[in-house]
Amino acid sequence: MRYATVGLIGKPSHKDAHVSIELLIKLLKQRSCEVLVESRIAETFNSDVTPATLREIGEKAELAIVVGGDGNMLGAARVLAEHTIDVVGVNRGNLGFLTDINPEDIERQLGHIFDNKLYREKRFILEAQVYKDNKLQDSHTAINEVVLHHSKVAHMMEFELYVDDDFVFSQRSDGLIIATPTGSTAYSLSGGGPILVPQLDALTLVPMFPHTLSNRPVVVDANSEITLKISKQNSDSVQISCDSHVVIAVEPGDYIKIRKNKNHLTLVHPQDYNYFNVLRTKLNWGSKLY
Amino acid sequence: MRYATVGLIGKPSHKDAHVSIELLIKLLKQRSCEVLVESRIAETFNSDVTPATLREIGEKAELAIVVGGDGNMLGAARVLAEHTIDVVGVNRGNLGFLTDINPEDIERQLGHIFDNKLYREKRFILEAQVYKDNKLQDSHTAINEVVLHHSKVAHMMEFELYVDDDFVFSQRSDGLIIATPTGSTAYSLSGGGPILVPQLDALTLVPMFPHTLSNRPVVVDANSEITLKISKQNSDSVQISCDSHVVIAVEPGDYIKIRKNKNHLTLVHPQDYNYFNVLRTKLNWGSKLY
Amino acid sequence: MRYATVGLIGKPSHKDAHVSIELLIKLLKQRSCEVLVESRIAETFNSDVTPATLREIGEKAELAIVVGGDGNMLGAARVLAEHTIDVVGVNRGNLGFLTDINPEDIERQLGHIFDNKLYREKRFILEAQVYKDNKLQDSHTAINEVVLHHSKVAHMMEFELYVDDDFVFSQRSDGLIIATPTGSTAYSLSGGGPILVPQLDALTLVPMFPHTLSNRPVVVDANSEITLKISKQNSDSVQISCDSHVVIAVEPGDYIKIRKNKNHLTLVHPQDYNYFNVLRTKLNWGSKLY
Amino acid sequence: MRYATVGLIGKPSHKDAHVSIELLIKLLKQRSCEVLVESRIAETFNSDVTPATLREIGEKAELAIVVGGDGNMLGAARVLAEHTIDVVGVNRGNLGFLTDINPEDIERQLGHIFDNKLYREKRFILEAQVYKDNKLQDSHTAINEVVLHHSKVAHMMEFELYVDDDFVFSQRSDGLIIATPTGSTAYSLSGGGPILVPQLDALTLVPMFPHTLSNRPVVVDANSEITLKISKQNSDSVQISCDSHVVIAVEPGDYIKIRKNKNHLTLVHPQDYNYFNVLRTKLNWGSKLY
Repeated sequence: MRYATVGLIGKPSHKDAHVSIELLIKLLKQRSCEVLVESRIAETFNSDVTPATLREIGEKAELAIVVGGDGNMLGAARVLAEHTIDVVGVNRGNLGFLTDINPEDIERQLGHIFDNKLYREKRFILEAQVYKDNKLQDSHTAINEVVLHHSKVAHMMEFELYVDDDFVFSQRSDGLIIATPTGSTAYSLSGGGPILVPQLDALTLVPMFPHTLSNRPVVVDANSEITLKISKQNSDSVQISCDSHVVIAVEPGDYIKIRKNKNHLTLVHPQDYNYFNVLRTKLNWGSKLY
Repeated sequence: MRYATVGLIGKPSHKDAHVSIELLIKLLKQRSCEVLVESRIAETFNSDVTPATLREIGEKAELAIVVGGDGNMLGAARVLAEHTIDVVGVNRGNLGFLTDINPEDIERQLGHIFDNKLYREKRFILEAQVYKDNKLQDSHTAINEVVLHHSKVAHMMEFELYVDDDFVFSQRSDGLIIATPTGSTAYSLSGGGPILVPQLDALTLVPMFPHTLSNRPVVVDANSEITLKISKQNSDSVQISCDSHVVIAVEPGDYIKIRKNKNHLTLVHPQDYNYFNVLRTKLNWGSKLY
Repeated sequence: MRYATVGLIGKPSHKDAHVSIELLIKLLKQRSCEVLVESRIAETFNSDVTPATLREIGEKAELAIVVGGDGNMLGAARVLAEHTIDVVGVNRGNLGFLTDINPEDIERQLGHIFDNKLYREKRFILEAQVYKDNKLQDSHTAINEVVLHHSKVAHMMEFELYVDDDFVFSQRSDGLIIATPTGSTAYSLSGGGPILVPQLDALTLVPMFPHTLSNRPVVVDANSEITLKISKQNSDSVQISCDSHVVIAVEPGDYIKIRKNKNHLTLVHPQDYNYFNVLRTKLNWGSKLY
Repeated sequence: MRYATVGLIGKPSHKDAHVSIELLIKLLKQRSCEVLVESRIAETFNSDVTPATLREIGEKAELAIVVGGDGNMLGAARVLAEHTIDVVGVNRGNLGFLTDINPEDIERQLGHIFDNKLYREKRFILEAQVYKDNKLQDSHTAINEVVLHHSKVAHMMEFELYVDDDFVFSQRSDGLIIATPTGSTAYSLSGGGPILVPQLDALTLVPMFPHTLSNRPVVVDANSEITLKISKQNSDSVQISCDSHVVIAVEPGDYIKIRKNKNHLTLVHPQDYNYFNVLRTKLNWGSKLY
């Protein structure tokens, strides 16, 4: 793949990330790329780089390299997904599910990507829309998960779940996680949800501390429309969170629709990438109890 | 739907099943159907019915009605799935996931089905093939699940799991469940697996008592080929079970391939059937802890 | 048991509770008891009853009867536990773990209790103390559980757990539940904690959505002192909740000590009470999946 | 502590274990101890050591040192527990819950133990008795757990559980684990049971793949008598296993009583031993998902 313009995005004020980005600038210049660097960190580099917002990187670059953890990737990816751009992650120390390039091995792995020895995959994205009195109030996207959660600790919440207008259950619990395959290895996994392989066109719905002990995670088609109706009996507002980032207040009587967004995130990996390798490493699957 | 020939299959020596089948014979005769009754129970009916094996029912009938529990349905369905035939279940007392017609309401619900007021769905089927020295030894089908299990209680087993030739993990455990969406509400659910809605083209792989505490259920595309390699280090033979019915011994060094079978089971339901209704009822989702 | 003075406590504005309390007043008067009725509801009764606060009931009565759900019992019991008084619960519809007298059967079961055909048990109580700069800031009691929880949805929390000054773990999670045997069938159970039989002198510590997948509920001696140190790295305050009732804000750098309170709750049950009966009924243990 | 006679027990034909035992023989001779070496391995040492059975070691020695994994310790400990003897474990590579002395650090840690800088603890032991027609048939002890398990894969089992003659539940499942605190970090933990700290005088009862989804692990007083009644409706015999070692066949209609054995295992640890350190290391509690 020949990338003429490449955007660099990094964790601000992070020394190791700074070192990796400096190396990336050098390597990309050697390949005669135009290099855009995210405005928040651009000034910390002496090199001849063009500062750019995330949105400008999305518009002008063909490749974005995010240096940091999965959290940094998520933040950048929600914006970049609105554009046609390949995205790759360099982890800043610990292997991430989304940031899989080893900083010690940037030159070789970047070489693979420029030589088209790569694995490209599309990850779908969710959108959550909050409706009050049947009117759309607010809308946000999520790459990992949408979480419905009570807003006050120790306050019970009751809601109804519908999948494609079919009533699934009325639940009293701390909330519900609706996770993509990408998000199935993050918060959802802590909550007892299954791992969905990235290619699976499915969502997992994971009840949080349900009062009904026979409640279990449910996996549905990713093209389903999920509706959450917040019972008017709830005494307090509840919250919707997208990727643990955006938090939207939702009032009793409101409802939330969650479905696939029209955009998707295009991840590229060096050709020796293997999802299950990452999984085994991240989850310590090598260690045995006895 | 006009069914000219209908097969009836029931739990032998079960009084309530007998009553329901007698009613079905009467109703089907009124509709001028030819009625085949499974050989094992045919002689217990005075009416003019034709005894037939499961296989003959599969060949000659357009509809098979199974009266009994989900276990009876599974047994019949593994054979019927090899033929082009609609299958419907009448539960003999407790609502089943596969036997959803209420015996109190047979006349009305059967009417819906004959009037084409029905919901037809295809459930895919698994096949498990055991290979020794790279030669196919044995092969069986499963509608619910294939289970790899040690054959002696309290004897550890070690095996490797591959999905489409990608190494997933080496696991020390009591075994592994590979369940279809149909099977996701049976044994797999007892073992902590997620519920997969019936339409989902996916399998869930559920580790049984894994020594690695971070192991979790994984959901993969149903078109994947699953390979289980039984480590030569195992001191004893292990077992593969299909729907808790067929049990195959597997030796250390053997491997098992599990993939979709070319056949499928065609279930029909009266039009007022709703999967989530069955789920809520079977799992007591109405009951709250506090 | 001869109770000369009995206090009645009920859910305000609850019709069924009102009916039961009216019956109780009649039965107690027949037994020549002095009857105290909690001030909030006393005026709704025509009978000659003495209004009293919870605290006055605790001081003057020998028996308190709480009519309502387990939530009403918890609220009353935290106060009553400071006094020497027997406490019994009449459930207002659904069987509770703490309110086990059937409203249809009040006369007979109350008779058992007055005839000393009863089962008396002591339930221990927790106290949670918040320390800032090593100075005690706040202190509250809990009958069910103390919960450490982040205060903003989707904001990670990190804390250290010590048992009797032994470091147990540093955890990143949504929080931790410290439950008594009494609380082990409430919130803790929703969160995957084990059931501790009431007589067990133990606490269960249940991690909430831990980032370390091998974290598991731990059961420790109830006479242990539990210390939670809130890491200074947390960007936001966190919360301690006692029985989902009192909520205390805790700042990064603070620590919380949780230990047995010197008081206990004295529950009495009619002699035919059986803990496992209540458990089976509440948890639907009769229902089988297949 | 002055130990005049010390027994050495090791994994046969294990090179690393051999090296450690040779070192132990040298160190013990320097301290003028009489050294007994388990018969199965005694001949592999040139030194002047006395071969002895496990039982002889239990009778004559004041300290037994087991070199190997937790499995080796369990095997030796079931016999040694019948005698008054301190037991300590040297792990043969991986840290064990019971074999906590580091082979690299034997000299220093053994020094601590001989200098009475040690931590001594008693671990209680279970006994399982099988009764047929109300007559005792068979009896065995377990340090970790007693497991009731079906004997044929994929064959359902039904049994009743009683605690001190109180009926707890009738369960359809793959089986039930009854684990001591010592066993709570072994098989029981793989099966979703809680961790009981070693000092806790409690047992955990963990249902295996229960058909009732609201079934949960229960923790009871270790002085309870547990009774398992095997329903006559079971078509096959079932099995009781003690520490995954002894397996006893149990027929439909039989019952099993499980209670504390009169003996206990006396473990000693060097003074710097800390249970939670072992737990954190064995369970990788340092690793975070994100």
